[in-house]
Amino acid sequence: MEKVRPHTLSGFMELLPEEQARFDQIAATLRRVYSLYGFTALDTPLIEASEVLLAKGGGETEKQIYRFTKGDSDLSLRFDLTVPLAKYVAMNYSKLTFPFRRFQIGKVYRGERAQRGRFREFYQADIDVIGDGSLSIINEAEIPSIIYRAFTELGLRNFVIRVNNRKVLTGFYEMLELQDRSGDIMRTVDKLEKIGPEKVEALLVDDLGIDKAKAREILDFTSISGSTYQVLALLEEFSGRNGTFDAGLSELKTVTKYLREFGVPEENFTVDLTIARGLDYYTGTVYETVMLSHPEVGSICSGGRYDDLAGYYTDKKLPGVGISIGLTRLFFVLSDCDMLSKEAVSPADVLVIPMTGDLSHAVALSTAIRGAGVRAQLYGEDKKFKAKMTYADRLRVPYVALLGEDEIADGQVSIKDMATGAQARVGILEAPGYLAGELAKRPAVQPIDE
Amino acid sequence: MEKVRPHTLSGFMELLPEEQARFDQIAATLRRVYSLYGFTALDTPLIEASEVLLAKGGGETEKQIYRFTKGDSDLSLRFDLTVPLAKYVAMNYSKLTFPFRRFQIGKVYRGERAQRGRFREFYQADIDVIGDGSLSIINEAEIPSIIYRAFTELGLRNFVIRVNNRKVLTGFYEMLELQDRSGDIMRTVDKLEKIGPEKVEALLVDDLGIDKAKAREILDFTSISGSTYQVLALLEEFSGRNGTFDAGLSELKTVTKYLREFGVPEENFTVDLTIARGLDYYTGTVYETVMLSHPEVGSICSGGRYDDLAGYYTDKKLPGVGISIGLTRLFFVLSDCDMLSKEAVSPADVLVIPMTGDLSHAVALSTAIRGAGVRAQLYGEDKKFKAKMTYADRLRVPYVALLGEDEIADGQVSIKDMATGAQARVGILEAPGYLAGELAKRPAVQPIDE
Repeated sequence: MEKVRPHTLSGFMELLPEEQARFDQIAATLRRVYSLYGFTALDTPLIEASEVLLAKGGGETEKQIYRFTKGDSDLSLRFDLTVPLAKYVAMNYSKLTFPFRRFQIGKVYRGERAQRGRFREFYQADIDVIGDGSLSIINEAEIPSIIYRAFTELGLRNFVIRVNNRKVLTGFYEMLELQDRSGDIMRTVDKLEKIGPEKVEALLVDDLGIDKAKAREILDFTSISGSTYQVLALLEEFSGRNGTFDAGLSELKTVTKYLREFGVPEENFTVDLTIARGLDYYTGTVYETVMLSHPEVGSICSGGRYDDLAGYYTDKKLPGVGISIGLTRLFFVLSDCDMLSKEAVSPADVLVIPMTGDLSHAVALSTAIRGAGVRAQLYGEDKKFKAKMTYADRLRVPYVALLGEDEIADGQVSIKDMATGAQARVGILEAPGYLAGELAKRPAVQPIDE
Repeated sequence: MEKVRPHTLSGFMELLPEEQARFDQIAATLRRVYSLYGFTALDTPLIEASEVLLAKGGGETEKQIYRFTKGDSDLSLRFDLTVPLAKYVAMNYSKLTFPFRRFQIGKVYRGERAQRGRFREFYQADIDVIGDGSLSIINEAEIPSIIYRAFTELGLRNFVIRVNNRKVLTGFYEMLELQDRSGDIMRTVDKLEKIGPEKVEALLVDDLGIDKAKAREILDFTSISGSTYQVLALLEEFSGRNGTFDAGLSELKTVTKYLREFGVPEENFTVDLTIARGLDYYTGTVYETVMLSHPEVGSICSGGRYDDLAGYYTDKKLPGVGISIGLTRLFFVLSDCDMLSKEAVSPADVLVIPMTGDLSHAVALSTAIRGAGVRAQLYGEDKKFKAKMTYADRLRVPYVALLGEDEIADGQVSIKDMATGAQARVGILEAPGYLAGELAKRPAVQPIDE
């Protein structure tokens, strides 16, 4: 028969079993941490009506979208989790309880140019809190504190959550009478880390027609840095001149105060006036997160405060704050930087290996072991002993339970620790408890090893 | 601004938060049970090259497929999890360890006619064991025993896994010299439950041109029923006349023997000679699962043994056995039959309600509670006390932790059990342990209440 070459599309991540298990550990940690803070899980369709998904319209995103017709329906694959959230909240407004706290971990699609580390299908892991009409600023501190906790539980150490407030920037540009250009300026200043201050100054002067003195003031302002206390003190010197600025500075003070109280250590967050986030959508606090050992990777988690989640669908005022982890890209980067744990992730805790023709005892033992919550795989194939042990080695199971004529006659089982080679003979009724006890002694492994 | 009507496409299930939590409980139970038996999780792309996905070609499925072009790529959304598995195993053959045991819970797409209870996007939850060249028959008993355990842990009680063997049927048709028609006959007999024996006999005689006596013999044969022992004893009377039949009967005996040893009670499985599964793909043991209280629903979990998983991609012989739960449809049916648990599923175990302007103490308390593994949501909005309690009611949280001036002054917190109304005053340092203890006393809730 003519064969079709089995292949996976480029730009689509498909992992081998052990890599997949590591990826799933990361996703499960995020799910657990998000749940600890009272977020509810959502799952929205991957396909939406194009008119719904593209209600906002325009922009880079629209060109990248997977859009097609089926029958006479104009359909699109979601390109983020925010637009489906806006649709969901607008549609179910009367049935939801506000503040509505949801997380969603799901795949999104962007037909980007294929390139190493760029994905066309990728997971995003989002949390958002949506208010009905109003939303307390405390959420703007809680959201990054959740990210701090999630990354820490994953095993990430050297990262900093950079916090800024768009009102501080907008207010400052108003002081310079550049309010009409604030969007353009923010997008230009956003490039600071990539292209450096000289080029940013040149762009401000040449492309935006801002005069040299003001361009220098902008650069001086955005270069304000130091500890959170120092930055806030330096910003204080600008206060009293512009209402928007003062409001933003007050928010920044509140957010950083609560960030500490939520338990984020001083070394894991910073006020960074260069952060603006490109999107006009954000109206207050904004975040980016960088790995200090790999700044070249850019932000691994971004978001902020917005005032109007679902204006394209409803007149209801729905302010919110959210943050998103590009999970597929993060996993790729961690793997690429060799930061994933090397510890074995086996599909089973113990492989039960029968050494007799009749498998009844091995079946019963496997069932009993599972009764103790231990993941047990029964090896039921009729192979030589060596092949069975090779199988156990390749799966990297921590334990093997051997059941031969001798063991059965004695009502025992031989349990081998595959790492140390140590073998113990245990009564068959004690085996489940023995294994559960041994496994409980092993230290929990974090998926990231930094 | 002109608004776009927010809506979700028909045939796409999108759940409200509490329904979603119930759905996720079911999916999590399946994941836990599959993992307990040493299955590894896979996650393959939703989009594949059409030539890969449709290598087998033809049939009903092809008409229903979501197929489109992006750039010059001909793409399709997966319509099941078996074809992607075949691709994956063929592609990664040298990197996998056989028998390869994988589970996958993921969305698939079929553009069926929109109809109540029919979905265009739906979850399948599959387990398969793939051998390299050969695969022990014990897997054919283990697979349904896993399904038994999964359904039981979900809370389902009155269900029966119907087991048959295609070789028994093929062998019997060979005895009748109807081997050329066995595919057609099986597809016709498959309709027994739907249309009854008279109509099946009519179809056999009129449409397939089988003579009346043989049609009657077929119906007599497929109507053999009773306990597993009785059915096997009656089948024994046909043995010695056809090799295929004898092989099938021997397999059926082995599978039912091991099913018992794997712990499946007699009342939860049966040998049913009417089960054939439409697909030619299956070569031995086949399964269907029915809810006895709702037989009209049809099979909620089906599968079987196959000899050639990936023949379209590779010359390697890859026999396997697998089973699939149509999870979205099952959830719809359970909800429709009012079989889902009514117990609250709250996004948090406790809502921390500050009754002071400064939230610092409430923040610290929330963090401490989470440290004990208890899901705590901080209510940070500036609302009246009544609004805060209404919020707690609507979220159906089991506990509320109230923190006012009095409590703070005394170093205490008032914890209210929302179900009983009972209120306890607990030292602020004891609160996390107290809540964890109270929650541990609550019985575990199964998602299905039968």
